[in-house]
Amino acid sequence: MTGLFLSFEGIDGSGKSTQARLLADHLKAAGRDVVLTREPGGSPGAEEIRRLVLEGDPDRWSAETELLLFTAARRDHLERIILPGIERGAVVISDRFADSTRVYQGTTRGDLTKTVNILHDAVIGIEPDRTFLIDIDPEQGLRRALSRHGHEERFESFGVEMQTRMRAAFLGLAEAHPDRIVVIDGNHAPEAVAASVQSALP
Amino acid sequence: MTGLFLSFEGIDGSGKSTQARLLADHLKAAGRDVVLTREPGGSPGAEEIRRLVLEGDPDRWSAETELLLFTAARRDHLERIILPGIERGAVVISDRFADSTRVYQGTTRGDLTKTVNILHDAVIGIEPDRTFLIDIDPEQGLRRALSRHGHEERFESFGVEMQTRMRAAFLGLAEAHPDRIVVIDGNHAPEAVAASVQSALP
Repeated sequence: MTGLFLSFEGIDGSGKSTQARLLADHLKAAGRDVVLTREPGGSPGAEEIRRLVLEGDPDRWSAETELLLFTAARRDHLERIILPGIERGAVVISDRFADSTRVYQGTTRGDLTKTVNILHDAVIGIEPDRTFLIDIDPEQGLRRALSRHGHEERFESFGVEMQTRMRAAFLGLAEAHPDRIVVIDGNHAPEAVAASVQSALP
Repeated sequence: MTGLFLSFEGIDGSGKSTQARLLADHLKAAGRDVVLTREPGGSPGAEEIRRLVLEGDPDRWSAETELLLFTAARRDHLERIILPGIERGAVVISDRFADSTRVYQGTTRGDLTKTVNILHDAVIGIEPDRTFLIDIDPEQGLRRALSRHGHEERFESFGVEMQTRMRAAFLGLAEAHPDRIVVIDGNHAPEAVAASVQSALP
């Protein structure tokens, strides 16, 4: 089997984590070796960096320092989990990857898009074979995200206006990379959305 | 008073930390506002990142991830300590700065010089007004470094051959940047070395 690298993207509450899990279950049932992982984090070292970034005062790191820390976490995740999975022929499914950085670091705290791209080219270098962008109405996404519990609420506290801008940024990426990013309508029951994802597998 | 940014560089055991302190004392006695700081670390956030990098298994981070983490620490140090100090007219003295990264990450674990420079240009951007390279015999440096105690021994465990290569790399940087980097002969008593440093102030 040839290895495959897939990512799920979308605004908070889009259901992308559920969809990543449903696709992993589907592919495992079909006999594939599957690695289901997530960002930020995904490897022990990257999870430590994730904790450093997401816990504590939201203003403790500048946007630039945060970007460097997330890129360090991605590099560790890539080396320890993603590349070894692809090399042994598994399907690696990541809940978020570089597009999230492009959208969040390009939208929420000033525009760092240029720096994001320089760092990506210098130390990451790869893109998923396919990215599923789970697209939903921002108000519904925010409602879902806020109904969950947890202490990593930083990114979910930005309100409908920010969710709307991030959705537009994700859709802009999809338009710029039509061969890689597939937009999936997430405003349906999870099983229906999962069927759309499966039909868009490479 | 105009702010000034000075750095001390050199191989382990070169005496640069002592010299940084002696210069700080000298300038304070002359009435200057002085900020004495160090890398990796130097700000609360950067010290947390320093701990993440230097503690634990030496192989837990790849050279690239380590470089990203050190660059994140430098960015935080720059924003919180170095730039505010310069802006209020202080003399900021840093025990190590970007030249250490150029030498260590370019010498010890494969050559990352190109990536080091890309990251520096993208997120750091500044150089000290003057850098004092305290140059000593590598065997003597190693002897001094090993006689100290502490648990951050990673970089000091590389032996004389590595110290010799790092010394050559520092001298190569001095040759490439003669207007910024002054080579100070460190094979003398601390007071004599301190006098050489003072006479080379910008």
